[in-house]
Amino acid sequence: MQLKQYLPILEWGRGYGGVTLTNDLVAAAIVTIMLIPQSLAYAMLAGLPPEIGLYASILPIIAYALFGTSRALAVGPVAVISLMTLTAASAVAPPGSPDFIAATLILALLSGVILMVMGVLRLGFLANLLSHPVVSGFITASGIIIATSQLKSVLGIKASGEAMPELVTTLIENAKDTNPYTLAIGVIATAFLFWVRKGLKPLLVHMGLAARPADLVAKAGPIVAVGLSILAVIAFDLEAKGVKVVGAIPQSLPPFTMPLFNAELWQQLAIPALLLSIIGFVESVSVAQTLAAKKRQRIRPDQELIGLGAANVAAAFSGGYPVTGGFARSVVNFDAGAETPAAGAFTAIGILLAALFLTPLLASLPIATLAGTIIVAVLSLVDYKTPRAIWRYSKPDFAAMATTIAVTLLIGVEPGVIAGVGLSLALFLWRASRPHAAIVGRVPDTEHFRNVKRHQVQTVPHILTIRIDEGLSYLNARWLEEFVLEEVSEHPKLRHLILMCSAVNAIDASALESLEAINHRLADAGVKLHLSEVKGPVMDALQRSHLLHDLSGKVYLSQNEAFSALILDDGTGDEPLVCGPWAERGIM
Amino acid sequence: MQLKQYLPILEWGRGYGGVTLTNDLVAAAIVTIMLIPQSLAYAMLAGLPPEIGLYASILPIIAYALFGTSRALAVGPVAVISLMTLTAASAVAPPGSPDFIAATLILALLSGVILMVMGVLRLGFLANLLSHPVVSGFITASGIIIATSQLKSVLGIKASGEAMPELVTTLIENAKDTNPYTLAIGVIATAFLFWVRKGLKPLLVHMGLAARPADLVAKAGPIVAVGLSILAVIAFDLEAKGVKVVGAIPQSLPPFTMPLFNAELWQQLAIPALLLSIIGFVESVSVAQTLAAKKRQRIRPDQELIGLGAANVAAAFSGGYPVTGGFARSVVNFDAGAETPAAGAFTAIGILLAALFLTPLLASLPIATLAGTIIVAVLSLVDYKTPRAIWRYSKPDFAAMATTIAVTLLIGVEPGVIAGVGLSLALFLWRASRPHAAIVGRVPDTEHFRNVKRHQVQTVPHILTIRIDEGLSYLNARWLEEFVLEEVSEHPKLRHLILMCSAVNAIDASALESLEAINHRLADAGVKLHLSEVKGPVMDALQRSHLLHDLSGKVYLSQNEAFSALILDDGTGDEPLVCGPWAERGIM
Repeated sequence: MQLKQYLPILEWGRGYGGVTLTNDLVAAAIVTIMLIPQSLAYAMLAGLPPEIGLYASILPIIAYALFGTSRALAVGPVAVISLMTLTAASAVAPPGSPDFIAATLILALLSGVILMVMGVLRLGFLANLLSHPVVSGFITASGIIIATSQLKSVLGIKASGEAMPELVTTLIENAKDTNPYTLAIGVIATAFLFWVRKGLKPLLVHMGLAARPADLVAKAGPIVAVGLSILAVIAFDLEAKGVKVVGAIPQSLPPFTMPLFNAELWQQLAIPALLLSIIGFVESVSVAQTLAAKKRQRIRPDQELIGLGAANVAAAFSGGYPVTGGFARSVVNFDAGAETPAAGAFTAIGILLAALFLTPLLASLPIATLAGTIIVAVLSLVDYKTPRAIWRYSKPDFAAMATTIAVTLLIGVEPGVIAGVGLSLALFLWRASRPHAAIVGRVPDTEHFRNVKRHQVQTVPHILTIRIDEGLSYLNARWLEEFVLEEVSEHPKLRHLILMCSAVNAIDASALESLEAINHRLADAGVKLHLSEVKGPVMDALQRSHLLHDLSGKVYLSQNEAFSALILDDGTGDEPLVCGPWAERGIM
Repeated sequence: MQLKQYLPILEWGRGYGGVTLTNDLVAAAIVTIMLIPQSLAYAMLAGLPPEIGLYASILPIIAYALFGTSRALAVGPVAVISLMTLTAASAVAPPGSPDFIAATLILALLSGVILMVMGVLRLGFLANLLSHPVVSGFITASGIIIATSQLKSVLGIKASGEAMPELVTTLIENAKDTNPYTLAIGVIATAFLFWVRKGLKPLLVHMGLAARPADLVAKAGPIVAVGLSILAVIAFDLEAKGVKVVGAIPQSLPPFTMPLFNAELWQQLAIPALLLSIIGFVESVSVAQTLAAKKRQRIRPDQELIGLGAANVAAAFSGGYPVTGGFARSVVNFDAGAETPAAGAFTAIGILLAALFLTPLLASLPIATLAGTIIVAVLSLVDYKTPRAIWRYSKPDFAAMATTIAVTLLIGVEPGVIAGVGLSLALFLWRASRPHAAIVGRVPDTEHFRNVKRHQVQTVPHILTIRIDEGLSYLNARWLEEFVLEEVSEHPKLRHLILMCSAVNAIDASALESLEAINHRLADAGVKLHLSEVKGPVMDALQRSHLLHDLSGKVYLSQNEAFSALILDDGTGDEPLVCGPWAERGIM
């Protein structure tokens, strides 16, 4: 049972074969064709030799197939994680250098270990810190940065920078060096790929193909662009005319690599690895959940952490770099009919064969074509609609999103994520520190108590009832003290304060301390503190504290009981029942 | 109106005079006598020349009197802030050196600016992050460290270290150098001060003095210890026998000092200054609130930030070091009858006179006596009862407290605060990410819906109602998706899912996105999503989103309406009402 939980393969692996096998094989073939150019392209985006993209698509997939819970998720290099890898490793060594490659291996290992530890300790909830507006804003901004950075390969010039200001400046400075042949290939390839994405499927459907196969054929577009541009380079000898090509790629199995153990480097890369892990996890889980729900299947997020962690550890030891579950490839895998993680394993075999036998064919592949595939892929990540929808729905959420986009574009990907997470958390804590509370009075001839500002209710000057509409924690304990003491200072005839706790689900130690402080301070001012409608579990906890013993007043089961008992004690002996909302009586 | 809010003096200053003036003058005289030895002692605790303690008690008090809202708070050097100053500035330069003094001025300025900015931006709620167990644990641990560090002066030896392991090791290593005369003075002074604190007041009361004056006379104990030990040093020429004394103190007005502007230093000191500001603010506000409540007065926390900020800026420009509102001195001020912040201003004048005329008398004051006053003062901060009470009340709160104490003692004050705040926040977020939710059914013959696990209720296999007992935010959005999808995957006959929103106070953009995802995923699985009992403000917000348009089901005003409408749609046309809790029927 325990073992099955950690090795989901034991569940779906039993009785594997037949139709499921065939479906998985077909899906794997389609995904392989799509993944070959994508893997090369993303590796180059990350500042790495292209073959590393292939290596990162072999063992990690198999590791995920063993430990992951999603039936259709396809793990490998993805655009945003590649950009984050580039940024993090660039801080340590120049892109492409042996030290840089060593740093990406360390990033993969750290990221794998972080994910696995989070999974074992069930810390998946930490991913909650990335709110939807922050993730959406971050992915949009990353897409813009990636697309802009790839313009250099389309133009055949040099450019650098983690954020837009430097990128755009260097692009403009070097625009004069544009290579016309490179530009021609880049523009044609990009335009073709855009057309494949937008125009090919409708055309195929119009020609009589069913929607799903039309979609899958369209996904093979990049491989056509790759083939045609290789032919163009060879036919017109464009390499001699300055068109940069991928060059010789070793024909090899994924190498066994050992990430360097260097305490200083590890420390430097720890925070980037953490950010990269959490972003990758959030992206991957939302894809996996979407696909699982379509078949009423479930994924287990804490086990997903282990699956993705294993994939990254595998990447670190097999010459790869950080990976996660990709959106595009997973959808293709799902649409192509993948039924079990075995489809992933078959894809891995496909890419392994490509690494062994197809790489010589790719030597003449122009880098501009790969840049085109990246640009087309990432521009689909840029989301124009969400910001407007969020602006209409919630201004604080929009502020978090706008901050994430602005900081990511202007300063860089890591500050962008940190700023977004920080602002979201600050806004949440701000709201949590000011919960809703109402002064209530009795609705005449009933036992109900309602907000004095909204209803015609009975109140008396010597009793004040405050209904608190939220659990009491250290975040709002100080607010509670201030709110209560302010109300008391405004009611000079007060003798009894009742806290109505019908909506108080919990009271932590800080809030307990505040209640004790309120109790003592009110006693100093000659006011008794009472509680009403305390929930069972809260009362159990309070019984382990001094509050009930020290309380100047009493705990009443119901608010009506409290009000009825205290109404006679007004210090005069009269019957002082006053009706009508306070506003009418000039008290508020 | 606006001006009055920022300058509370305009409020209490009008018509000042008469009895109030007399009361303030008396209180000021008593506080001044208490503050002189305390200021010298805390400056030495912070690694600074003693006169800086006096300077830090002059202008800062006047600045607070202008901007602060508490009538009785006494601002100046305090033990915990002095320790934090020592720790922070030691990272930059050796204690006592000119660079060290420069660093403490920068700390005061930074701290002042941080507090004022927080006040203007109304960020006082950030102090909420320091929960009661963390503050209590931190102050206890700091008290232990301070008392231990002062043993070196009582023994007349050298010792160093920010945390207990190094402190204790160096104390033991150097114990052989103990100076017997210093030890005698130190032990006698400390014992005398303990007796003054515990035994003198009962004695005076026994001798016929009233409780309040007895208390105030007892507070003057330190000045007696100071006087007697100066006499002892002079009479027995102890300085020649190796007893360390305060030495010559310049007779001077507080000097005008200009904090160094050095970007690197500022950056290094920014985080310590932030921690110091927030700890100081929390301590000060809780003292001020306690005292204000006794007279049914109020303090305004955001204005307190400005008052404390102004005090620290004043300290930075008048040769002082970081200050805050102290517990002991404020209580003495209050008990001595201070009625307005003018009492503070008079105290400042008293200390100014001391700095100008009394300092020559203090040259022969043994440092061991000052160490004794510190030990007696800080041991009262060590709280033995709270940890046990918190252990009984709440284990997570205890974990936060124990972590703060352990990290502060073993590693240092800054890591201690950070660890405590981090753990409290993580525990809070963990709880917030797993709110309470219940599957509910209809109580027979009523319109009420209750938890199926606790009550005999009606349910049908094709409808599932989930009642969510908390506002939906990005912290629990993912939990909501997982919870709903898991429940759906366990109910194969399901056709309708109702989310009962009676306790949902808000839905942020992330939760909205999750609801949309749930809606689409359920639609893919052939299940309609309905909402019931949505609150007015939540409904207003939803109307600005796409959810209501895309919703596969409907929004019902009441849960009963929803259940009654959907019960007929079971796909068979029968009347399938089933009674009894699910457990009995083997469904759960």
